[in-house]
Amino acid sequence: MKVGIIGATGYGGLELIRFLHNHPEVEKIELFTSSEEGTIFSTKFSHLEGIEDQPLQKIAEGALQNLDVIFTSTPSGVTTNLLPPLLQKGPKFIDLSGDFRLKNRASFEQWYKKTPAPQEAIEQSVYGLAEWNESKIAEAHLIANPGCYPTAVLLSLLPLIKENLIDPSFLVIDAKSGVSGAGNKPTQATHFSETNENFSIYKINEHQHIPEIEQAIAMFANVQTKISFNTHLVPMTRGILTTSYAAVQPGVTQAQLLDCLQAAYAKHPFVRVIKEASMIGTNRVKGSNYCDVYVQLDKRTNRATIVGVIDNLVKGAAGQAIQNMNIQMNLPQTMGLQTVPLFI
Amino acid sequence: MKVGIIGATGYGGLELIRFLHNHPEVEKIELFTSSEEGTIFSTKFSHLEGIEDQPLQKIAEGALQNLDVIFTSTPSGVTTNLLPPLLQKGPKFIDLSGDFRLKNRASFEQWYKKTPAPQEAIEQSVYGLAEWNESKIAEAHLIANPGCYPTAVLLSLLPLIKENLIDPSFLVIDAKSGVSGAGNKPTQATHFSETNENFSIYKINEHQHIPEIEQAIAMFANVQTKISFNTHLVPMTRGILTTSYAAVQPGVTQAQLLDCLQAAYAKHPFVRVIKEASMIGTNRVKGSNYCDVYVQLDKRTNRATIVGVIDNLVKGAAGQAIQNMNIQMNLPQTMGLQTVPLFI
Amino acid sequence: MKVGIIGATGYGGLELIRFLHNHPEVEKIELFTSSEEGTIFSTKFSHLEGIEDQPLQKIAEGALQNLDVIFTSTPSGVTTNLLPPLLQKGPKFIDLSGDFRLKNRASFEQWYKKTPAPQEAIEQSVYGLAEWNESKIAEAHLIANPGCYPTAVLLSLLPLIKENLIDPSFLVIDAKSGVSGAGNKPTQATHFSETNENFSIYKINEHQHIPEIEQAIAMFANVQTKISFNTHLVPMTRGILTTSYAAVQPGVTQAQLLDCLQAAYAKHPFVRVIKEASMIGTNRVKGSNYCDVYVQLDKRTNRATIVGVIDNLVKGAAGQAIQNMNIQMNLPQTMGLQTVPLFI
Amino acid sequence: MKVGIIGATGYGGLELIRFLHNHPEVEKIELFTSSEEGTIFSTKFSHLEGIEDQPLQKIAEGALQNLDVIFTSTPSGVTTNLLPPLLQKGPKFIDLSGDFRLKNRASFEQWYKKTPAPQEAIEQSVYGLAEWNESKIAEAHLIANPGCYPTAVLLSLLPLIKENLIDPSFLVIDAKSGVSGAGNKPTQATHFSETNENFSIYKINEHQHIPEIEQAIAMFANVQTKISFNTHLVPMTRGILTTSYAAVQPGVTQAQLLDCLQAAYAKHPFVRVIKEASMIGTNRVKGSNYCDVYVQLDKRTNRATIVGVIDNLVKGAAGQAIQNMNIQMNLPQTMGLQTVPLFI
Repeated sequence: MKVGIIGATGYGGLELIRFLHNHPEVEKIELFTSSEEGTIFSTKFSHLEGIEDQPLQKIAEGALQNLDVIFTSTPSGVTTNLLPPLLQKGPKFIDLSGDFRLKNRASFEQWYKKTPAPQEAIEQSVYGLAEWNESKIAEAHLIANPGCYPTAVLLSLLPLIKENLIDPSFLVIDAKSGVSGAGNKPTQATHFSETNENFSIYKINEHQHIPEIEQAIAMFANVQTKISFNTHLVPMTRGILTTSYAAVQPGVTQAQLLDCLQAAYAKHPFVRVIKEASMIGTNRVKGSNYCDVYVQLDKRTNRATIVGVIDNLVKGAAGQAIQNMNIQMNLPQTMGLQTVPLFI
Repeated sequence: MKVGIIGATGYGGLELIRFLHNHPEVEKIELFTSSEEGTIFSTKFSHLEGIEDQPLQKIAEGALQNLDVIFTSTPSGVTTNLLPPLLQKGPKFIDLSGDFRLKNRASFEQWYKKTPAPQEAIEQSVYGLAEWNESKIAEAHLIANPGCYPTAVLLSLLPLIKENLIDPSFLVIDAKSGVSGAGNKPTQATHFSETNENFSIYKINEHQHIPEIEQAIAMFANVQTKISFNTHLVPMTRGILTTSYAAVQPGVTQAQLLDCLQAAYAKHPFVRVIKEASMIGTNRVKGSNYCDVYVQLDKRTNRATIVGVIDNLVKGAAGQAIQNMNIQMNLPQTMGLQTVPLFI
Repeated sequence: MKVGIIGATGYGGLELIRFLHNHPEVEKIELFTSSEEGTIFSTKFSHLEGIEDQPLQKIAEGALQNLDVIFTSTPSGVTTNLLPPLLQKGPKFIDLSGDFRLKNRASFEQWYKKTPAPQEAIEQSVYGLAEWNESKIAEAHLIANPGCYPTAVLLSLLPLIKENLIDPSFLVIDAKSGVSGAGNKPTQATHFSETNENFSIYKINEHQHIPEIEQAIAMFANVQTKISFNTHLVPMTRGILTTSYAAVQPGVTQAQLLDCLQAAYAKHPFVRVIKEASMIGTNRVKGSNYCDVYVQLDKRTNRATIVGVIDNLVKGAAGQAIQNMNIQMNLPQTMGLQTVPLFI
Repeated sequence: MKVGIIGATGYGGLELIRFLHNHPEVEKIELFTSSEEGTIFSTKFSHLEGIEDQPLQKIAEGALQNLDVIFTSTPSGVTTNLLPPLLQKGPKFIDLSGDFRLKNRASFEQWYKKTPAPQEAIEQSVYGLAEWNESKIAEAHLIANPGCYPTAVLLSLLPLIKENLIDPSFLVIDAKSGVSGAGNKPTQATHFSETNENFSIYKINEHQHIPEIEQAIAMFANVQTKISFNTHLVPMTRGILTTSYAAVQPGVTQAQLLDCLQAAYAKHPFVRVIKEASMIGTNRVKGSNYCDVYVQLDKRTNRATIVGVIDNLVKGAAGQAIQNMNIQMNLPQTMGLQTVPLFI
């Protein structure tokens, strides 16, 4: 299998390289760029010396057509124009940006403040939440790889909403992410001295993952709801933890809640249901493609606390993208992704 | 003024020392210990060499009686027995532990799993939320200094609940703290390699600050409610940020919400109302006694997001304790506490 | 006293504000900028809301002349032109940049790759190493405030070189700094995700503080030497620790080494000589103006290990600058600088 | 191949598990403990849920004899007694502790303050510096896996000393390590709040890796010398960077220095020679088995700065141990170790 990466110089691209280099079915990785053609990749990223010493290539239709799968890991607004002309000309595409996630073009425009992709391309695209959309992913030409926050949120919440164990009408989702989610471009908000030893809330009630989560709840659990969703920046590099709150339906027990999660993911190797916990941290999944989920009933309030944990760069980006490639290519989902979490 | 600190070797004690050394009215600070009598303080804490070189003293009634104010910064369960016999024998007491915060002894027993203080002593104690209880604090012999989380939560929520702008029946409070809140005793949960680069949720629905917050909402806003409250450990040393969610009452506007906070704190120097924000971080208040609060209406959901930020060791512990001492002693509240936030 | 700060928006400027706000003799602080005239300072730095709400002023000779002391905390190459025309027209100047530190203009050009200041202005300037140059500082119109690394290096090494206890011919100085030393401008090298969990060496053998250190050794210890000096970036915000190595002169004992340091600093409140240590960390001095120094003889090799620790933003920048102002203004050196180290 | 790990609950043990789980020739991993027999491993380390769910076994000769290779990752002083009776009874041993590294028993006693292993066992053991001792490692029954610091120091220095390009008589080695090197047992020195935002020097001139480095310089470069060596704690979890200083022999050029390193490691896949660098950080090798080395001549002083970088838990412990196992078992050195560095 030959794969290409457009946008290899971002953190998503670097993680794709990290995993694809150890993927048994990938024999060649080609790297594309819009601006640094000819640069030897390892001169830019010296940790890849001796590993990835080829030059970056210009994005050209000819070079792309020989590839089996192409990952696009670009800022939002790039693939809206880039991909539509290339669809169904050979390679399958997995887009890690937000450009093809929202089915409603007006919603994209509202939340991303950018021109949406053409309607036809949006319709062809398949939302790549691997555990919930496997059959469509298997046949997709263009996969819209889910956002990092939505992955942790949806995997932890969807079974409980779908089985009507929690009340979706007042869903509060409080999300926290490591700084790598902001990408590799230096900004004041990600400047070490101002990020270190500082925990902050950002984009209050305005994060573009809100419509993505609401759309997926409608798509997979058939429920229309408006969520409260806020995002926070944690002074660490990797990891997302989401804490969600909802009233449980009358009479629902802790056992029912946990059973529901376990039933949903019994056959899914990358989602682990935590059975009991006094403490759940992002280091459980660090560097790996796991999403660990937990639910706990608070009998005092008859509300549930639901927790999801991922490595934002792996299950929240590159790992899930490769999992989707495996599904598309009819390979075992875990191929190339069996790294053990680092823990420390 | 002569002040004493019992439990000076904890982080609360060290912060008391840091501020009291620059307090214009404090002429003497005496340090007491239950176990390290005679140890020169700066041999244990070398950053205080040349600043605090006196020996730790044994806790003895005689030595304590000559002092004007005594701060107790001890683990929960210590002052329940220690303080009652000493009350009204001279010094005023400010207890930084949780031992005298809960008026209901059964509730203390349930949440702290410890024997509560005698009823009479509890009744004498005054809850030291400085901005909300000033007149009682001024006359108190025993102040129960608020918990770190409750301080950030209550200062941000109380005005909105009291003025009936938000619906208190479904209050979700998602709290995050730096690791210093766990104290100075090494544990696996605070071991650097396992805490660093790890964001975790702990004591899910079981934190002992829950009844304290609910009691204060009843006390100051006259509302009975059961809150959802969870706590998270942030890989940083100082700082608490709390994110709270509630439906707003019909018709309430963003201006009303902000005005309510501003009116409540117009005359309170340590609570700053943020007028507009895309990003709010704990570094706004680092090392200082400020509590910064913010509220934002989400028109899409008709719910409000309410944010409170403090330095957990200052406004959440030692700083508020000294503010309370100033009130007790009829000094300006800001005396000795006018440090500028460090920011970085 | 009225003081001005040119370059208030950098980290050095922010620290000056932090200390000057609590300086008993400073009644007014004016803030100047080359590019953001009119901006309310606290809208840019929200941690200063309610503390520093005045607008930034244009740098104009008229406004500056009314001030007693002006701190310039600007990138290198700015004050070379800015200050010479203003000298001896009223205010005293304390320059926190490197522009007036090197007496040899060719050396400045070589190490800074910039045009040096006019010879006359350089000659008027006084090197502000407070503990070693007090009498000249007291009469200076222009103080060249020392670099952060040189401060820690020189305070720990100078007594031992001057008293000929160590051999200056093979001096190895290995220096480590927190990231705030790189200033507040976002760069790839200070981007959180790439700085966090990463310890690096930079400017190998090429740091512009090399000639400054060598010049000061010549100036204060009357010894010509060429040092080995390297600098490292520590994933933390504040603090410098320098580890220096030199052979001791024949027969020199540990007691002699320590006595030498103690004698040198007996009357200097901000230099603390550590008497015994198994572990010395930057948190000893965090947020304070202390420089802690230590020396240990390694009998196995007959070489000494010499350690210096400072907060790079305080004793290594703003704190020492204010100490110099106190000396210039005939005030106690410690005025406004008696903050207790934060430790955590 | 069946392998065992004694001391699996330490960080070295966890890293062995992380790599061995993806080693193509390892079909079974058995975990042994002295104190927690029967505990399901993943209940203790929840990041290994679904990966390592077997119980810890008692250390018993019978169970051990069926294994091909046994890694001992125990505190110093444990294997001195444990291993000698087991030698040459079947399994090969790779000891990650310091117990068999020093050939001189008196030296062990002096630096480790513990009883050394029996002389005969010490003589049988082979120092496992993979790139420098391959033929002996291939035939060893007991490998003394090198210390973390010595690995970075020796790989960067040995070629230059052996080829007589640098003067070994005045070698200064300044070493810095992440906190994971201190192991997983909570202590005050590794308590998050006191380690975070704190860079410190420890064991000044007294680290037990000093005799190990000197012995290896004698062993592999045939030079007797006494080094200056100090160790520092960096507020990060993983990574070691060592900065070494030595005079170069007369006439030696930068090209000669670099060529020497390149020649030494041309056939060694895990040592990468950096050709040019303005900045070298531990994130180059994070999570991987690489050791990156660099040398730069300072023409001003005619001294060389030599830099070595490793992940202390991988090339400095578990990774090098597996590399040694591969050599012992006649497998390609890189088998199971081809993880790409994480970078962030």
